[in-house]
Amino acid sequence: MERSTDAASRAVLQIAEREAYDVIWDRFEAQAPQCGFGELGTCCRNCMQGPCRIDPFGEGATLGACGATADTIVARNLGRAIAAGTAAHSGHAKHLANTLLKSAEGKAPDYPIKDEAKLKTVAARIGIPTEGKSIQELAKAVAEAALADFSEKETPVAWAASNVTQGRIDTFVKYGVVPTGIDSAISEVMHRTTYGVDADPVNLLLAGVKCALADYAGCHLATDLADILFGTPKPVVSAANLGVLNADAVNIALHGHNPVLSDIIAQTASELDEKAKSAGASAGVNLVGICCTGNEGLMRHGIPSATHSVSQELAVLTGALDAMVVDYQCIMPSLGTLAECYHTKLITTMPIAKIPGASHIEFSEEKAGETAKEIIREGIEAFGRRDPKRVNIPSHQSTTMAGFSTETIVGALTLLNKGDPLKPLIDNIVNGNIQGVCLFAGCNNVRVTQDSGFTSMAKELAKQNVLLLATGCGAGAFGRHGLLTSDATKEYAGDGLKGVLTALGQAAGLEGPLPLILHMGSCVDNTRAADVAVAVANKLGVDLDKLPVVASAPEAATEKAIAIGTWAVAAGLPTHVGIVPPVLGSATIAKVLTEDVKGLFGGYFIVDADPVSAAGKLVEAIGKRRKELGI
Amino acid sequence: MERSTDAASRAVLQIAEREAYDVIWDRFEAQAPQCGFGELGTCCRNCMQGPCRIDPFGEGATLGACGATADTIVARNLGRAIAAGTAAHSGHAKHLANTLLKSAEGKAPDYPIKDEAKLKTVAARIGIPTEGKSIQELAKAVAEAALADFSEKETPVAWAASNVTQGRIDTFVKYGVVPTGIDSAISEVMHRTTYGVDADPVNLLLAGVKCALADYAGCHLATDLADILFGTPKPVVSAANLGVLNADAVNIALHGHNPVLSDIIAQTASELDEKAKSAGASAGVNLVGICCTGNEGLMRHGIPSATHSVSQELAVLTGALDAMVVDYQCIMPSLGTLAECYHTKLITTMPIAKIPGASHIEFSEEKAGETAKEIIREGIEAFGRRDPKRVNIPSHQSTTMAGFSTETIVGALTLLNKGDPLKPLIDNIVNGNIQGVCLFAGCNNVRVTQDSGFTSMAKELAKQNVLLLATGCGAGAFGRHGLLTSDATKEYAGDGLKGVLTALGQAAGLEGPLPLILHMGSCVDNTRAADVAVAVANKLGVDLDKLPVVASAPEAATEKAIAIGTWAVAAGLPTHVGIVPPVLGSATIAKVLTEDVKGLFGGYFIVDADPVSAAGKLVEAIGKRRKELGI
Repeated sequence: MERSTDAASRAVLQIAEREAYDVIWDRFEAQAPQCGFGELGTCCRNCMQGPCRIDPFGEGATLGACGATADTIVARNLGRAIAAGTAAHSGHAKHLANTLLKSAEGKAPDYPIKDEAKLKTVAARIGIPTEGKSIQELAKAVAEAALADFSEKETPVAWAASNVTQGRIDTFVKYGVVPTGIDSAISEVMHRTTYGVDADPVNLLLAGVKCALADYAGCHLATDLADILFGTPKPVVSAANLGVLNADAVNIALHGHNPVLSDIIAQTASELDEKAKSAGASAGVNLVGICCTGNEGLMRHGIPSATHSVSQELAVLTGALDAMVVDYQCIMPSLGTLAECYHTKLITTMPIAKIPGASHIEFSEEKAGETAKEIIREGIEAFGRRDPKRVNIPSHQSTTMAGFSTETIVGALTLLNKGDPLKPLIDNIVNGNIQGVCLFAGCNNVRVTQDSGFTSMAKELAKQNVLLLATGCGAGAFGRHGLLTSDATKEYAGDGLKGVLTALGQAAGLEGPLPLILHMGSCVDNTRAADVAVAVANKLGVDLDKLPVVASAPEAATEKAIAIGTWAVAAGLPTHVGIVPPVLGSATIAKVLTEDVKGLFGGYFIVDADPVSAAGKLVEAIGKRRKELGI
Repeated sequence: MERSTDAASRAVLQIAEREAYDVIWDRFEAQAPQCGFGELGTCCRNCMQGPCRIDPFGEGATLGACGATADTIVARNLGRAIAAGTAAHSGHAKHLANTLLKSAEGKAPDYPIKDEAKLKTVAARIGIPTEGKSIQELAKAVAEAALADFSEKETPVAWAASNVTQGRIDTFVKYGVVPTGIDSAISEVMHRTTYGVDADPVNLLLAGVKCALADYAGCHLATDLADILFGTPKPVVSAANLGVLNADAVNIALHGHNPVLSDIIAQTASELDEKAKSAGASAGVNLVGICCTGNEGLMRHGIPSATHSVSQELAVLTGALDAMVVDYQCIMPSLGTLAECYHTKLITTMPIAKIPGASHIEFSEEKAGETAKEIIREGIEAFGRRDPKRVNIPSHQSTTMAGFSTETIVGALTLLNKGDPLKPLIDNIVNGNIQGVCLFAGCNNVRVTQDSGFTSMAKELAKQNVLLLATGCGAGAFGRHGLLTSDATKEYAGDGLKGVLTALGQAAGLEGPLPLILHMGSCVDNTRAADVAVAVANKLGVDLDKLPVVASAPEAATEKAIAIGTWAVAAGLPTHVGIVPPVLGSATIAKVLTEDVKGLFGGYFIVDADPVSAAGKLVEAIGKRRKELGI
């Protein structure tokens, strides 16, 4: 199997091979053959009488020692994956809620409220009266409401309940999946999946859905609070791929997920340009992004994206990366060893995420600016140790347009119809210029030739006039392949879609159409896409499960992706995954997730590793919904 | 390997064999060989690029696809087990906190405050002013404080901080392991163990300790609130083993962990005696206990214990069990199928714990009494379908003395020294009549011949004049084997210990000495033992890690046991486990847990599957501490 479809990644993979450094693809190959029980989800390690494993083909034991069936085991494992994913997203959100609280209380001078309008919008949405409150008072109230959403209470999680349609709320109430606290939903799943608690597979799946709705709240919180603190993204043009590294600059990569530190680094970097130049870097300090911290920096500061996910090690292997500063999530532990093979300074910053081999500079809101400078100085210092003979920066980089927050999209539509901005979108869906909407999300996965799932599917869907949105590593893949551009629209969009994107581009004063795919941000920013869908549903007076809106994670890898996929299904979306999640060991669970769940939530999973076939299924799902809507 | 050392269990196992019904031992055998990677803890399934497995002997891959080492993987898996155990205990506690709140608000008439003195003690301990408050107001304040402990806040979890020595608090602060919320500690571990977050094994272990301290709080909460709602246990004499089933009665087993429903059933059962008699059961309704719900019923109502843990299926196989009502935790899913083979009605009651094949009668505080009666009526109805030819109740039952709450123990000591009740205990420790104290806890485990670890160790330690306490399945094992009796003291206690237990028995007006082992309750009630240790430490002015107090879980099985073992070590106790937890795949982790941790917390794990050798190590640890104390 090809490792990557990305030319830059392939170029640097040759360096890895030459230097005999094992990257993730090598380590993955060394793991072969992987355990079939684990892949199928039928391995249970939830007590010390195990591990118990069930061969779904009936060879060997059919029950765990306690009597758990394959159905129970698969459901329990899936539940724990959702709980872990929720914990990650909401841990990120809770961090920002605490930052906002410190900002409001005057304890974090580096964190003023950047977007007062967003603060007011969010406050109003969750029912906090804004009148008569100063910005600081309002920020404090929002931060406290955010923190309250983590605790179990008698009312639903506010960030879940206030960001969906009434129809969804009714459905969630009906099936008992309304989360009343984010942390408590996680704990509940962990309790239910311990030895001898919940053995009913469908009951367990519903616990997973409840937790996934808490994940939706956590993601939405993370987006809202980041916008309040750092500004809501606006359209921005930048570049993507390893070619954004600059041989003449001190290159510092911002890697991880939470903008809480990286945004301050972005604000601070230029102050140290002169120091970098004095150290011999004629181009000063060059910040680049990796993974979703990269997406956050791109969305708000136009910081170019170096790479994402499976190819993160390649940034170091260019020999041109002077420092990599990381927060948390999706940061390969291998970076510790790899950085030691180069001059690259790997800097961990969060107490909850340390890596053997890395330097740790602890982050706190109180001294964020100072820490940001310390990190940049470490980069400059490391630059002095760079070995120019080992520098191999691939030339590849693509223009990348990003910054498509919900507000940006509505703003663009407002240029077409000031009084009723959603009307042009809906009109074009109704008249078929836009057949439907697909949100691309999720990771790269070493099992899939990097980016192949994303790019193949996007081209297929664009041809069929499906409006494409993207976040996270998906957006990263599209950026690397030049699909976040006007040119891509011209080349790949069907006529109807091209017309709409061109009209919007013209109205926005661009020289060409909007990009083929709208980059909405990091993986928590999937909620931006959800907000657009909710607004359209509310305007049409139909529920989400009736809209011709679908989602796809063709190369999903993390437990976070499982959590997001689950809430997408609960939100009513046909949701494609291009890798097989560990559920096939239970025919019952597989059937519930791909078929029966449709009767409950309207959404369902489509599992298909072939991008063209998968795109076909999504087009079919869109067509079916259009027909049901009578359009 | 023998399946059980218990004669009653062995008798019923013959029935299982005759009827060709597979019980846990059969299903466990069918799982052989179990996966070595899972047993060693080196299998990672925390993302969909796995499962990755590392052979600790260096055959095959040495790193996961992401670069995670065996150290990281083992630490992550251990962390998740602790999080799950914490979620179980604290889910139980949260349930009771909500019950107490409903009681205080007048919404749950079946739940009056039974123990006002305990309510006041608990309130005072956590800093709630009691003066001028009605009992209802105080109950509300305690319930709200309990619920607040689940949420992240700026202050430590009250139920953790107020139930330890100042020395422990200082140590916990020093190593950054003070939990500030129970649910949030669980979520933090789940976040840290997702793909690409914490890779530092020691940092991960400390996250596990922090979560385990949240588990301590959850356990303590469960004990305190159950005492407030249902009364603090007092000494009680009852019986244990399958022989407590009565061929002439409607036999109803109370199984699970939370007394919230079973206590109401205990209060209600006699009301339906006549109905049972009318149905032909001349002995009326006979409630028996299984697992920790059984322990709760034994401690407060003298309900006899039928069995525990691995032998729970055997209660059904007697053919004499008419109904088994379960709440949650340690309830084998196999019971659903087994009950269908008999007339036994398996009744699930909690929305979070359903079992395929069971009838579900949903519990709520608002209609608990009504539900209790409905359940008993189901038992009576099932009795009518009982096939007398299939009834095989083993004759074995042992007298069992229980009810040794902290208050009971202090009460007994008060009879020796009214003004200074701890003095006689301390004096006897100092003079060597009591060499030290050992708390037996944890489950049975199908890997260990049932009860063999518990009974062998207890006899060895008693001979060496170690005062023995027990909870959970350990107490169950001792009950079955007649060790919770005065006779056992006479037979097995060393002279010093015998003298003390005899003096206490005499003072209490018993005909003989206190039992060889003091049954302190269910597994959450391990905190009762901790309270005694804290009181002694405070009186002596030394920290817990200096006391000659040890703990042992010779047959541990659940993730809950891992959480408890971890807090016992953090509390400073040498803590024995008789099965090998899934950590041996990392020499680093194994060494930290058994050696290096001593330098941090004073406590450490002793892993030894041989009970005699293990008892020797505990006696040695006690001797070492005595020497260090100069006694």
